[in-house]
Amino acid sequence: MKERTHVSSLREKIGSEVTIKGWAHAVRKQGSLAFIMVRDISGIVQIVVTKEAPEALELSKDLHLEDVISVTGTVKEAKQVEAGVEILVTSLEVLTHAAPELPIQVVEKSSSEAEQQARMDWRFIDLRKPERALAFKTWTIMENAFVRYCTEQGYINIHSPKLMGSASESGSEVFEVKYFDRKAYLAQSPQFYKQMAMTAGFEKVFEIGPVFRAEPSFTTRHATEFTGYDIEISFIDSHYDVMAEEERFIVAMMTDVKEKLGEEIKKQLGVEVVVPTMPFPKVTMKEAKEILGQMGVESEKPGDLSPEEERKLCEYIEKEHGHQFVFVTEYPITVRPFYHMRLEEDKTLTKSFDLLFKGVEITTGAQREHRYDILVEQAKDKGMDVPSLQYYLDFFKYGAPPHGGLGMGPSRMLMKLLNLESVRDAMFLYRGVKRISP
Amino acid sequence: MKERTHVSSLREKIGSEVTIKGWAHAVRKQGSLAFIMVRDISGIVQIVVTKEAPEALELSKDLHLEDVISVTGTVKEAKQVEAGVEILVTSLEVLTHAAPELPIQVVEKSSSEAEQQARMDWRFIDLRKPERALAFKTWTIMENAFVRYCTEQGYINIHSPKLMGSASESGSEVFEVKYFDRKAYLAQSPQFYKQMAMTAGFEKVFEIGPVFRAEPSFTTRHATEFTGYDIEISFIDSHYDVMAEEERFIVAMMTDVKEKLGEEIKKQLGVEVVVPTMPFPKVTMKEAKEILGQMGVESEKPGDLSPEEERKLCEYIEKEHGHQFVFVTEYPITVRPFYHMRLEEDKTLTKSFDLLFKGVEITTGAQREHRYDILVEQAKDKGMDVPSLQYYLDFFKYGAPPHGGLGMGPSRMLMKLLNLESVRDAMFLYRGVKRISP
Repeated sequence: MKERTHVSSLREKIGSEVTIKGWAHAVRKQGSLAFIMVRDISGIVQIVVTKEAPEALELSKDLHLEDVISVTGTVKEAKQVEAGVEILVTSLEVLTHAAPELPIQVVEKSSSEAEQQARMDWRFIDLRKPERALAFKTWTIMENAFVRYCTEQGYINIHSPKLMGSASESGSEVFEVKYFDRKAYLAQSPQFYKQMAMTAGFEKVFEIGPVFRAEPSFTTRHATEFTGYDIEISFIDSHYDVMAEEERFIVAMMTDVKEKLGEEIKKQLGVEVVVPTMPFPKVTMKEAKEILGQMGVESEKPGDLSPEEERKLCEYIEKEHGHQFVFVTEYPITVRPFYHMRLEEDKTLTKSFDLLFKGVEITTGAQREHRYDILVEQAKDKGMDVPSLQYYLDFFKYGAPPHGGLGMGPSRMLMKLLNLESVRDAMFLYRGVKRISP
Repeated sequence: MKERTHVSSLREKIGSEVTIKGWAHAVRKQGSLAFIMVRDISGIVQIVVTKEAPEALELSKDLHLEDVISVTGTVKEAKQVEAGVEILVTSLEVLTHAAPELPIQVVEKSSSEAEQQARMDWRFIDLRKPERALAFKTWTIMENAFVRYCTEQGYINIHSPKLMGSASESGSEVFEVKYFDRKAYLAQSPQFYKQMAMTAGFEKVFEIGPVFRAEPSFTTRHATEFTGYDIEISFIDSHYDVMAEEERFIVAMMTDVKEKLGEEIKKQLGVEVVVPTMPFPKVTMKEAKEILGQMGVESEKPGDLSPEEERKLCEYIEKEHGHQFVFVTEYPITVRPFYHMRLEEDKTLTKSFDLLFKGVEITTGAQREHRYDILVEQAKDKGMDVPSLQYYLDFFKYGAPPHGGLGMGPSRMLMKLLNLESVRDAMFLYRGVKRISP
């Protein structure tokens, strides 16, 4: 590839001739001058075309917004503009013309429902907004930190199948697939398979992959397909070991994000990235309900938190402990799946937790029941169809270690980290009940 | 978690008391002594139980193969055994009993078709074999290197949806999903979406995720669901820029694998990991056919390579150039999809390539056609249903940069790297026409 300079590096090249490539973000013609804002993935810079470059000036007459161009010229200091530099053009090449009428504008902010639908219809134009791309730069840094942390700590990276012969956890909310002459189902989580990895002796595994929920939800927090980060660990003493591990990888993720993108996030979105201190605050569900009761927040459902209760609890923790995260532990069995291990001292409660971040649940985890007989009993208690679970129950027959793990939603974490309006803005392409394109 | 030592660290602890946890890999009772081989994810060690530890000796009488145990004792040098150490037990705890009859054995090698099916039925026991787990340790190191390389090089990590409103490339070989009151399809590759990321100005993206192929193939190289590594890059001059990038990330992957697991791979599997030199050998399809002709290999299909031709070509390259990789370039349009860019000098050929590794194709890549009008023409030429492609074609209407990319199969790469019999051994759980469980 020919030498090409990114906009973000121009300050280091004052006085030099460079070639930049990108999109015509704004075009202004003024007599025998043209001012073009050129946008690449790293930033936006103004280029100035004068009659010293007659061919370039001629070309800029027909330039449209969002044309893809290659520009060669000299970098000049320009204290009056935000970038601090501009380029005096010697030559200009139009790589690809854009159609003159754009379906949505790159610069415009949208707020109405119709505009939001248009943004999703034309997501590739919407994503050209620098603040939208920033979400995915942040995702990249976050995920790299997670992968590195797990790899360095001796985890095995698995990719479990998304096509399953039977529904993973419950029959409802599962997508059915036509699989040759039979039916298959899309995995609602890698839960059963990462537990299988424990019984395979893999000891610690992580997985990054899509999960599918045929859930008719229309909230800003839900989607029918989203990315999950999952871990599972053997030979734990309790769910506290799993929470400690999550604290460590979240600190690794947030440290990288702050270091590499903290300034850009502050500038673009006005958000301060805070690396949390360890240990994170922890309250039991019982304590959470007491706190919320004292705050006068109505309990909608015993043993579980409504979105409103999650918000209020986080406000309380932030105020009292100065922390953006809080673990809520020991959920009652009534709201937890059959495979969560129960507390020795109170069999109605589970060794489980959720992690809340800035008012939203981003993780569910637990120690799992690894003892075959107890697991079968718990499945029956919950009214599960035990024969259809037999392949899963079999994992625990031939030597299963004590283990636990968690599943985290990076889109929700990113949404809160960057104060985005909706989880849809923290997904490359959102999938919902009524949204399956582009 | 209580202090626990992995078997691989025991040599550093000679003379100390340690606790190890793992599976009873072999049990031998001899008078008032018991010898137990304990296996964890890092290795296997012999523990010796004598009458000095009467409770442990009593427990070991009832010990079964694959029971999960925790053992405390003193590490002693033992030159006669491979591990170089053994543990003299002071206490033993059975964490979980295994059922006495195992459906398959951990130690046994299987070769018959029936045995292979049993291995897949009981994959979690099969994966307990250290050489099987090694494949996934290698995968972990390989993938971490890929993610790190891309992140450091400024790629954006995307997770494109696997649920699509219409089939991604062709209507055949696609799985259909019941999506609320309509139909959806599982993505056969992230191709269209990573191209969308280019038109969104993301410039360089990578994706790791599942791809789905409803292909009734029964070879050792095919599966209905597998993991893909994908990249896409903007502002390239040609497909040579994409190949150069693949060389760099493969070198990064192989360097890490050799450094971290080279010795273990040699010991367990007898395979030498070779870090390839750059640039990799490259031959055009025309040259490849000439070489094969001179070797007396029959051409099954003009412009494409049969598995036999791939093997023979790699043998030739290895002999002549001492290289395990070879790029085959410039495939004719007849065997390439409509969106591959054509060569200026010969419109019947494409700016495309495959990468072969030790006899098997592991990558397909190309420069893509980014010019809307030409792309539409090429789709028509190929007899595609243009209206159903319109959402994709629209990506190229509003300013699309020149770009190209590739899709790589890590399971195939791993299969060849470790000389595994089948791609099934390089997948955590294989999915085929007749295999959708566990």
